[in-house]
Amino acid sequence: MTITLDQLNAASQAEFTQLLDGTYEHSPWIAVQAWDQRPFTSLAQLKLALVDAVRQAPREAQLALIRAHPELAGKAMLSKTLTAESTHEQGKAGLSDCTPAEFARIHQLNADYNAKFGFPFILAVRGPRGLGLAKPEIIATFARRLDNPPDFELAEALRNIHRIAEIRLNDKFGHSPDLGNLVWDWAEQLGSHSDAGYAERGELTVTYLTDAHQACARQLAGWMRDDCGFDEVSIDAVGNVVGIYHGSDPQAQRLLTGSHYDTVRNGGKYDGRLGIFAPMACVRELQRQGRCLPFGLEVVGFAEEEGQRYKATFLGSGALTGHFDAAWLDQQDADGITMREAMAQAGLSIDAIPALRRDPARYLGFVEVHIEQGPVLNALDLPLGIVTSINGSVRYVGEIIGMASHAGTTPMASRRDAATAAAELALYVEKRGGSEENLVATVGMLEVPGGSINVVPGRCKFSLDIRATTDAVRDACAADIVHELQALCERRGVHYRLEETMRAAAAPSAPAWQQRWERAVEALGLPVFRMPSGAGHDAMKLHEIMPQAMLFVRGLNAGISHNPLEAITNDDAELCARAFQNLLDQLATEFS
Amino acid sequence: MTITLDQLNAASQAEFTQLLDGTYEHSPWIAVQAWDQRPFTSLAQLKLALVDAVRQAPREAQLALIRAHPELAGKAMLSKTLTAESTHEQGKAGLSDCTPAEFARIHQLNADYNAKFGFPFILAVRGPRGLGLAKPEIIATFARRLDNPPDFELAEALRNIHRIAEIRLNDKFGHSPDLGNLVWDWAEQLGSHSDAGYAERGELTVTYLTDAHQACARQLAGWMRDDCGFDEVSIDAVGNVVGIYHGSDPQAQRLLTGSHYDTVRNGGKYDGRLGIFAPMACVRELQRQGRCLPFGLEVVGFAEEEGQRYKATFLGSGALTGHFDAAWLDQQDADGITMREAMAQAGLSIDAIPALRRDPARYLGFVEVHIEQGPVLNALDLPLGIVTSINGSVRYVGEIIGMASHAGTTPMASRRDAATAAAELALYVEKRGGSEENLVATVGMLEVPGGSINVVPGRCKFSLDIRATTDAVRDACAADIVHELQALCERRGVHYRLEETMRAAAAPSAPAWQQRWERAVEALGLPVFRMPSGAGHDAMKLHEIMPQAMLFVRGLNAGISHNPLEAITNDDAELCARAFQNLLDQLATEFS
Repeated sequence: MTITLDQLNAASQAEFTQLLDGTYEHSPWIAVQAWDQRPFTSLAQLKLALVDAVRQAPREAQLALIRAHPELAGKAMLSKTLTAESTHEQGKAGLSDCTPAEFARIHQLNADYNAKFGFPFILAVRGPRGLGLAKPEIIATFARRLDNPPDFELAEALRNIHRIAEIRLNDKFGHSPDLGNLVWDWAEQLGSHSDAGYAERGELTVTYLTDAHQACARQLAGWMRDDCGFDEVSIDAVGNVVGIYHGSDPQAQRLLTGSHYDTVRNGGKYDGRLGIFAPMACVRELQRQGRCLPFGLEVVGFAEEEGQRYKATFLGSGALTGHFDAAWLDQQDADGITMREAMAQAGLSIDAIPALRRDPARYLGFVEVHIEQGPVLNALDLPLGIVTSINGSVRYVGEIIGMASHAGTTPMASRRDAATAAAELALYVEKRGGSEENLVATVGMLEVPGGSINVVPGRCKFSLDIRATTDAVRDACAADIVHELQALCERRGVHYRLEETMRAAAAPSAPAWQQRWERAVEALGLPVFRMPSGAGHDAMKLHEIMPQAMLFVRGLNAGISHNPLEAITNDDAELCARAFQNLLDQLATEFS
Repeated sequence: MTITLDQLNAASQAEFTQLLDGTYEHSPWIAVQAWDQRPFTSLAQLKLALVDAVRQAPREAQLALIRAHPELAGKAMLSKTLTAESTHEQGKAGLSDCTPAEFARIHQLNADYNAKFGFPFILAVRGPRGLGLAKPEIIATFARRLDNPPDFELAEALRNIHRIAEIRLNDKFGHSPDLGNLVWDWAEQLGSHSDAGYAERGELTVTYLTDAHQACARQLAGWMRDDCGFDEVSIDAVGNVVGIYHGSDPQAQRLLTGSHYDTVRNGGKYDGRLGIFAPMACVRELQRQGRCLPFGLEVVGFAEEEGQRYKATFLGSGALTGHFDAAWLDQQDADGITMREAMAQAGLSIDAIPALRRDPARYLGFVEVHIEQGPVLNALDLPLGIVTSINGSVRYVGEIIGMASHAGTTPMASRRDAATAAAELALYVEKRGGSEENLVATVGMLEVPGGSINVVPGRCKFSLDIRATTDAVRDACAADIVHELQALCERRGVHYRLEETMRAAAAPSAPAWQQRWERAVEALGLPVFRMPSGAGHDAMKLHEIMPQAMLFVRGLNAGISHNPLEAITNDDAELCARAFQNLLDQLATEFS
């Protein structure tokens, strides 16, 4: 028997707690706390209220909640004293029929984990679509999380508890995140195409115009045409997949949206692709409802954003802004194949590229949804974030040159140690990067070339990456860092070389478009959380010719990206698609 | 006409200054200052007094001294306004007949150097034996020194001025450092043998039992037998060259001395070899004088100390202490040749190795002279140093493990940056290493493996090398560093791995033997400067079975070693040989 929000909103505290019984293992106090937050306008809001009750609880209560959970395939399972919910979940994951070797491995992991953290390992073993995680995946995750720092792992345990609670609540409410599941399924299917050499290892790599890349384009075009009902679907002269869902007047202005379908090497399934699937899901719904918007919707799967096979980042979106650089055509990939040859083999017509340039007057603007690729939303337990600006960035590579000398015979005061000079720089970069909001600064590469254990380093190479929501904040940070580098080199009697390798202007969101995303998130009953985008996106290119704004979706696993562990939940994908629908509805209202 | 110390000691200040006119370019104030230090018991003492006058002068006076020198092949040479001394020296170096291209290059270097440092480039262009440096060598040195930090280069300019003054004083005194020249010539000749692949590039590499190595052994044995008059000369079962100069009673105890003749790859001519040549020169003198000591003198050229071809460091001296490890015989070099095969090819008898072990009762002790391989004596303008202890050492390799994350999207507060954690460690190591005398600590290797400009480092590898005159000081430093590593990792939410890879006990000098070196240095009119040895030496092995003490000789070029720039002067080699003679005389007196 399912329950409803109306029932909950009308319930006494005791009834409320009873209705939610079993959502959080042995911990009715969470529902008791959340009761104060009634009325709830959405299931998502209720879920967040429960999460907040745990977030605000003292650490002891959080630990007690974690410890109220059974070990995976542990004693409680063997002695059949699990709660009904846990029995169901652990059974679905196949944990009730482990082999003796699997039991032994899990037993050892349980022991190690408990010894390190002082609480049992908790994993939401029911994945999206209600499917259980496979046993090898569970064991691999267990081993990986054993390496986490304790405070991080405590938070990760709580996040898994909230995910378990979310799935249990979906069951209680009879709620099925259909759009999210659709997106999730598309991501799985598109993820089955991978470049030669990677596919064999089970790794996802789709680089520009490979066989896998072309298969992805055909797949996307097929879904757009056959499953979603776009009016026009084509693969353009650079390989972008373009689907148009006409407005009631086919000549009406269009909303442009989309993201890229290429990937980095051994990347994740959602980076880029989520921004194609979410509007596809919306069009599919519009078409099922026989509904037409007063404006057109143009969804583009950009062929290239990551710059992996050729150094031609943002090739796909750049073609739409008229920034396709003809010099790229002569670049060779690692096998010596030029881009020109690759395009010819793929049947693309280079002569048609200039015509891809869009006339901004024909468009309302550009929106893009994207997985966050960072830890912020995950750490805050928020499914969605509104992007305020795509950060401006500047990058340098540098080297400090001191004097190599014997580590045994050179007194500390006589040294010209390039590595400790670089260390001092790295710590300054870290401090300066943390000195204000919306700024990050990173030394990502650090190396004493040919270093020896018994030689005082004479050289140390490093890189610098500085990003901020505004170019002014970025530039002030860069100036301070260069100044500090000069000062510390002078003080230490070493010198340096520094080369700027990249500079990109910040792309602030268009206020009106950012506000539409904010209203869409509010309409879901979720808090409006604004954040900068630290990574670059296709929206940066479109920003050059039309207003743009982006929506971020929480990434699991600390927001890891460019990595096979990149992941989202079907429930978050659902919220993302619903927010997109709301944005379309807002525009429809504005238009009429 | 030559002058004498007696003349100088009896001179008025004005006469003294007049006698030394031209020693330092246009700077009579230096002699004026040194006059106070009379009487001088040796030319070396006079030279040091002049050096000290410059050391104690204000920086402005030092700069004026440097600026009193002409540019190399500069305007003064072209307009023939050089001092007589400079004309002679620059002419000897072939600078008066440069090609137009060489003039242009030197002109540019002069301009760059003056612009950077504000004074002219000064180089002692007359090398040992009065030979001029070759023009290409002068130009290379010029270009290299242009890269020095300004304060270091100021000191380097003064050191060259002192070297020029030393050569001019030798001329004035009619002093010829004959033993030093002999040592210097031997080093040049032995340096002409180099392993295949290195010889072609003009690099010096002599590794265990190569053709070049065996040629060196034959060369040393030949010199010992034919030039020096050793009574017994042999190449032993591990390739050590052993020369014995019997005492008046051939059964008398012997003084053992020597050092190694193998080199590192692309190494220097003096590391090790100086410790063979110096006692060889003494024996040559004894034999020329028909003099016999009341004790025997056994000079060993150790075949292997550097551990380059095989991992068998101290193989040569280890054979004398009974520490030849039979397991080494099966090690393969880079070409797959085992040590056993290499020894067989060289005609060595493996069965005879155990008999190489020396009976300590037959020896007085072990002394070794060695180039310092560090910057200390050079920076202090001292030719000789007395070793107090060969430092104890401990080495580690380690890794900090954080969490790799996106450099653009991970807020500073959410990072687990392995590189900044390692940076913090490196700065602590530097600070702790400098916190007490006779201690050094080094992070020689530092690397973010596979680091990317846009990724917060998830791993950072490093090495640690800690050395101190006593094991207790070394161990306290290591404990503090490990404690700091633990604390900073905990604070930063990262973890670490640390593996100890080497630990060697300190080898303090035997007091009676150290005092003999001190008296020998005093007898030369030089100050007694005591210092630890940061590098390991054959004396460390002999330390295990008999008393030992070492004497260090100043290395030029900031004391660089394991490098072709490693160098000494013939005058310093002379002082070293004279100190060795004095030590032999002391022992002879003690014996009689």
